[in-house]
Amino acid sequence: MADFSSERLSVLNAEYVRCIDNDAVEQWPDFFVERCLYVVNTADNYAQGMQAGVIYADSRAMLHDRVSALRDANIYEQHRYRHIVGTPLVLERSEEGAQAETPFLVVRIMRDGQTDVFASGRYVDRIVDEAGTLKFAERIAVCDSHNIDTLLAIPL
Amino acid sequence: MADFSSERLSVLNAEYVRCIDNDAVEQWPDFFVERCLYVVNTADNYAQGMQAGVIYADSRAMLHDRVSALRDANIYEQHRYRHIVGTPLVLERSEEGAQAETPFLVVRIMRDGQTDVFASGRYVDRIVDEAGTLKFAERIAVCDSHNIDTLLAIPL
Amino acid sequence: MADFSSERLSVLNAEYVRCIDNDAVEQWPDFFVERCLYVVNTADNYAQGMQAGVIYADSRAMLHDRVSALRDANIYEQHRYRHIVGTPLVLERSEEGAQAETPFLVVRIMRDGQTDVFASGRYVDRIVDEAGTLKFAERIAVCDSHNIDTLLAIPL
Repeated sequence: MADFSSERLSVLNAEYVRCIDNDAVEQWPDFFVERCLYVVNTADNYAQGMQAGVIYADSRAMLHDRVSALRDANIYEQHRYRHIVGTPLVLERSEEGAQAETPFLVVRIMRDGQTDVFASGRYVDRIVDEAGTLKFAERIAVCDSHNIDTLLAIPL
Repeated sequence: MADFSSERLSVLNAEYVRCIDNDAVEQWPDFFVERCLYVVNTADNYAQGMQAGVIYADSRAMLHDRVSALRDANIYEQHRYRHIVGTPLVLERSEEGAQAETPFLVVRIMRDGQTDVFASGRYVDRIVDEAGTLKFAERIAVCDSHNIDTLLAIPL
Repeated sequence: MADFSSERLSVLNAEYVRCIDNDAVEQWPDFFVERCLYVVNTADNYAQGMQAGVIYADSRAMLHDRVSALRDANIYEQHRYRHIVGTPLVLERSEEGAQAETPFLVVRIMRDGQTDVFASGRYVDRIVDEAGTLKFAERIAVCDSHNIDTLLAIPL
């Protein structure tokens, strides 16, 4: 079986958030398999089984579209973001992959220096090993807040 | 000697905070041995040797009482909380257990989406291996702030 | 080659932030080699190759001077700080050492209990193994905010 240890998943998450926070978001879709699921949802909707979420993408191509839109909108560049990610808790491991939950906190730094908590929640992930590289088959960002910023442009 | 590595303690903490933040607080006492010590204290009081703290429990039964009180008070459900926990630093290891310190940060998400830092500090822990499962013999949540919320209902 | 695993670097960071947050800042210079580089800079200046930063020290002696100044100024004692550090991402390993990036978040707790985000960013580190102990040959704290507090007294 592939190595789905908490340590290896931590490194995957470290690479993931570095890509976003270092403004290399064009590489962000590469963290996913081609036929993936990426969803941003509220905790309440998620608990009630509403899967569509605020953001929904079910292919890597859709993630690329999202990055293009984000660059066109030019919102991303106005602020900085910093993701702080907790320890991945592996809930299930099999030949097919691992199921994990990982808490996250994202702060937003405005141009005037004002910093606030932008989002918090947990990632609900299904992770697979694709030729020796860990990839997200599913990443559902379940946000604690009801009010997800409708301008939410950066990936969580 | 049992495995008291930083990695294993990280997983314990990940399980602990998931239990609280996912609103499964009824399982929270199970992270402790039966004759445990759970204290929430301020850094100043702790430094001065005042051990009683704002919250004090010296058995798992008292932790269960606390959970019941919390459910009755119905305070817990009004907000969400998110714990972000740092790397456990193991200060001492022996046959009897491990002594560790771990920083924590808890944000509170109000129903209107407003998110603020609810508490920060460090856990001062004594951890034992009970039949292959790590448990807290002592968990002292030493809070940075003087003003610990008197409505403090959720476990830290 | 020395062990420059992400886990070992995590423990180094845990010791580093504990030293600062537990107010044992006199020991802080010991985390560096004698001819070290310690810089606090903004992300914008860093990206433009301006290396001098807001704070610049190129020897352990300068770090000791900084601690003395900080104690004389008596600023440090007025608040508390709490560092939360992410998973170190090792970008390069060799006989000479490791290059790593690690996100950080620092909250400040005022005496009245008010807590806010004081700084966020990433550490850009060169780490060496000095007789079995990991030390920073370089630690550049690249801050997300333009407006680094000019009273910045505590080490990041």
